[in-house]
Amino acid sequence: MSGRFITLEGGEGVGKSTQARALAQALRARGHDVVETREPGGSAGAEAIRALLLEGAGDRWTPGAEALLFAAARADHVARTIKPALAAGAWVVCDRFLDSSLAYQGAADGIGADRLRVLHEVGASGLMPDRTLLLLLPEAEALARATRRDGAEGDRFGARDAAYHAAVTRAFRALAEAEPARIRPIAADGAPEAVTARLLAALDGL
Amino acid sequence: MSGRFITLEGGEGVGKSTQARALAQALRARGHDVVETREPGGSAGAEAIRALLLEGAGDRWTPGAEALLFAAARADHVARTIKPALAAGAWVVCDRFLDSSLAYQGAADGIGADRLRVLHEVGASGLMPDRTLLLLLPEAEALARATRRDGAEGDRFGARDAAYHAAVTRAFRALAEAEPARIRPIAADGAPEAVTARLLAALDGL
Repeated sequence: MSGRFITLEGGEGVGKSTQARALAQALRARGHDVVETREPGGSAGAEAIRALLLEGAGDRWTPGAEALLFAAARADHVARTIKPALAAGAWVVCDRFLDSSLAYQGAADGIGADRLRVLHEVGASGLMPDRTLLLLLPEAEALARATRRDGAEGDRFGARDAAYHAAVTRAFRALAEAEPARIRPIAADGAPEAVTARLLAALDGL
Repeated sequence: MSGRFITLEGGEGVGKSTQARALAQALRARGHDVVETREPGGSAGAEAIRALLLEGAGDRWTPGAEALLFAAARADHVARTIKPALAAGAWVVCDRFLDSSLAYQGAADGIGADRLRVLHEVGASGLMPDRTLLLLLPEAEALARATRRDGAEGDRFGARDAAYHAAVTRAFRALAEAEPARIRPIAADGAPEAVTARLLAALDGL
């Protein structure tokens, strides 16, 4: 594969979608072919699974079923969108990927990272990003931003309580400490342009 | 759990659905509460996933995505239908369960039994049947029956070629040899009533 696979990660309200778009534009301005995508979704099959995951009651799925559905959507996304783009030499900028499953289902829901990595091996041959940019904000500011965007409810994940979201953020920080070469923590506060400049700087070596 | 969990397994066209119905009736006649169900499906969430699995082009999903979707559907089915029924003391008669994944995705598609068992652990805490009845027919007769029922095409699985179905049947036989106490091979030829009598006899000890 001659392209580069970059993922943006972080909890609700840290600005991942906005920054993914800005990063893709900045990379295009440098002359790269860029494919912007996001999870869950990013391919026809994965979007069908996304609808099952994000709609309905908060307890619609057990944590185990949810982890399997995310892995199934990721498998389709990797096979139909990400691998073909990388093979064609494009840079893929993806809003959420495996680390979100490790933080949400693995840590906060207690499924366990080892088992989630087996699911990723079955679905996507264990494909990992070349670089993961972890956007971090103080908890109160992320919550305020997510609430402004989604209202008090949000989707099935945004609607979970503050303790859940704190556990997710702790899990993301632990992942970054365990894999410092791949996962770079990025301060997501300040002007959007300043955040985008930090993301670009964190692509060193690619 | 005070109920009993019985699964029927086998390739296409061996008469599982007909026999599941007949077995459930015979068990009711003996005074048991019986819940009849089938996979993929058997609960609201699993039926939504079933539609994704059985419709569309033969190559709609990669084998890995397919294995994850079956495991997700099974997770929902176990949590919402099977475990509550067993807890209430019912006998659950289920048309297909984990052994179908082991035979179809595990053996014929090459995902591997160890990994599929991890998926089942994540989704359904590894719940296993108390007894599994494996219906067996000579390959040519099963093919003729399935074609009479479904036409030349069938669903995404029925439409696969003879070598695929032969691999599935070999995998089922190997599973039965590895777990003789749980999985009983049953000759599925002859009158339906005779087959049902063989199934009932194979519930010895329950």
